[in-house]
Amino acid sequence: MPSGEDSLIARYFRPIATDPGAFDLGDDAAILKAAGGDIVVTTDAIVEGVHFLSDDPPDTIARKALRVNLSDLAAKGATPAGFVLTLALRSADDAWLKPFARGLGEDASHFGCPLLGGDTVSTPGPKMISITAFGRVPQGNMVHRSGAKPGDRVVVTGTIGDAALGLDILTRGAVATVLADDAAAKEMLVGRYRVPQPRNALAEAVRDHASAAMDVSDGLAGDLAKLCAASGVSAVIDARSVPLSAGAATLLALGAVGIEGIVSGGDDYEILCAIPENRFEAFAHAARQAGVAVSCIGTVIAGPSVPRFLDNEGREIALQRLSYSHF
Amino acid sequence: MPSGEDSLIARYFRPIATDPGAFDLGDDAAILKAAGGDIVVTTDAIVEGVHFLSDDPPDTIARKALRVNLSDLAAKGATPAGFVLTLALRSADDAWLKPFARGLGEDASHFGCPLLGGDTVSTPGPKMISITAFGRVPQGNMVHRSGAKPGDRVVVTGTIGDAALGLDILTRGAVATVLADDAAAKEMLVGRYRVPQPRNALAEAVRDHASAAMDVSDGLAGDLAKLCAASGVSAVIDARSVPLSAGAATLLALGAVGIEGIVSGGDDYEILCAIPENRFEAFAHAARQAGVAVSCIGTVIAGPSVPRFLDNEGREIALQRLSYSHF
Repeated sequence: MPSGEDSLIARYFRPIATDPGAFDLGDDAAILKAAGGDIVVTTDAIVEGVHFLSDDPPDTIARKALRVNLSDLAAKGATPAGFVLTLALRSADDAWLKPFARGLGEDASHFGCPLLGGDTVSTPGPKMISITAFGRVPQGNMVHRSGAKPGDRVVVTGTIGDAALGLDILTRGAVATVLADDAAAKEMLVGRYRVPQPRNALAEAVRDHASAAMDVSDGLAGDLAKLCAASGVSAVIDARSVPLSAGAATLLALGAVGIEGIVSGGDDYEILCAIPENRFEAFAHAARQAGVAVSCIGTVIAGPSVPRFLDNEGREIALQRLSYSHF
Repeated sequence: MPSGEDSLIARYFRPIATDPGAFDLGDDAAILKAAGGDIVVTTDAIVEGVHFLSDDPPDTIARKALRVNLSDLAAKGATPAGFVLTLALRSADDAWLKPFARGLGEDASHFGCPLLGGDTVSTPGPKMISITAFGRVPQGNMVHRSGAKPGDRVVVTGTIGDAALGLDILTRGAVATVLADDAAAKEMLVGRYRVPQPRNALAEAVRDHASAAMDVSDGLAGDLAKLCAASGVSAVIDARSVPLSAGAATLLALGAVGIEGIVSGGDDYEILCAIPENRFEAFAHAARQAGVAVSCIGTVIAGPSVPRFLDNEGREIALQRLSYSHF
């Protein structure tokens, strides 16, 4: 006589909990083997109506919930080791749970980050998915936010600003109107919002070469300010060097979005790191090997001031807003 | 220019994140040292209106969120090592956050389970607190649900059924009416609902002597059925031996609650374990040393049937409901 909760777990989550430490989700706890190094622990939650939309496809919601955590592990130089899932639902809806579990299982397998355990609870409110993910690094080798030094290059992966534009499209903002006839561009930007591309392939290179790193989740400008504050440094960024997708570049050229919207929009889930000048070539080589695009966007400088973004003429761009904040 | 979220973390949670692996909550991840053994991982969430009431004191909500996880660690024989916190709030309300963080910090310190990191998100819905807690056991020594053998004694800690009665009082059920004039009894039962007493002091004894263990969170009858199913055994329980507080015993004698309400009510957070007969004396001695009351309530038997609860005359008590289920 399994309860509804047990039956739900057995149907949807036991099949994807393949790690021996998960004990088939049949116990109260999981076992995580440290394997001689340090365990890196990160936790990130996504809430319906805040981090994802009610009608987002369930498999993309699952992927986003896991990937925002994988992105943190990548930025810390850690290799994924597993995760636990807390799922708060109004009801046990098979039509939602089936694709959710499928997306989660596919990503867990793809990124080598097995489901170890979890908790499923009912809520009268919005759906919420909270994941705590674990990674492994050789002892003492986690890459911190602190550690950036004047002279280091400021580097980001991938492209910046797409996800915020994708959200604007989904919420029928100005971007949707401008791109009315360009279905491919809209789909790309929406995809960047719904399914981040965590840069776990770059983790080892970050660990080997970065003096500081974090993932860009709340907006490049604000997250860079956090990295600089933690490192006791500042930075100068060439706004032209901030890597843009073709879609974002078009929208910027058309004036549908300003540079502020690009560098303060959230949900990028790219890696931001500081690379010492004498390490840059090796880092760039490792990034090519890993198949991850990296762009140098500026330089770490001494001083306590908020990082400055400069325009084409070298003038400082006044940013009213640096990043997304929940409160 | 810290955001509201950063400021909230700095004010309320940084002061209680004293472990070096928490990096003052100033990074994207924490470090957990395995210290040569296995890391036991457990996760449990509590939702406003489901696991706690809107007007429960914030410090008791924090304590409950942590303690339901500490209870899992205790039942697995693990020593607390730390936890991460996901907090979903409608707003950053100082009057709520201050006592919440104080209660959390006091319990973290008392149980030796430091805050390592977390995520604070906004929600338009009910408050939700999700905690993932870590414990350490010598390699391979986690106590499982499986492992109980015919002939083992079935043992529980503390008293059973109080929390469900406390919830009944808070929601103005029949129990509140019966106990109208007995403020002390009401306060005790409500306290048992709001602030569980995890049996971490017994973890080592469980590890040393139990063949199987779990914590009783959804109701004794249902949780025992799970332990038996995982072990491939059954059990016979003498309902008279189920340990009751004075308040619960009075209510049972008055007929205000039946034995079914006692053994299927949730939120006990006691340890249920199977102890081989030849280990029982040593286990009971260790429990006395640890200051934790333990009661033998029955015997593990062979077979696949659901555990039976027998009344004073040895007749089976028909239980309509074994435990709480979310769905």
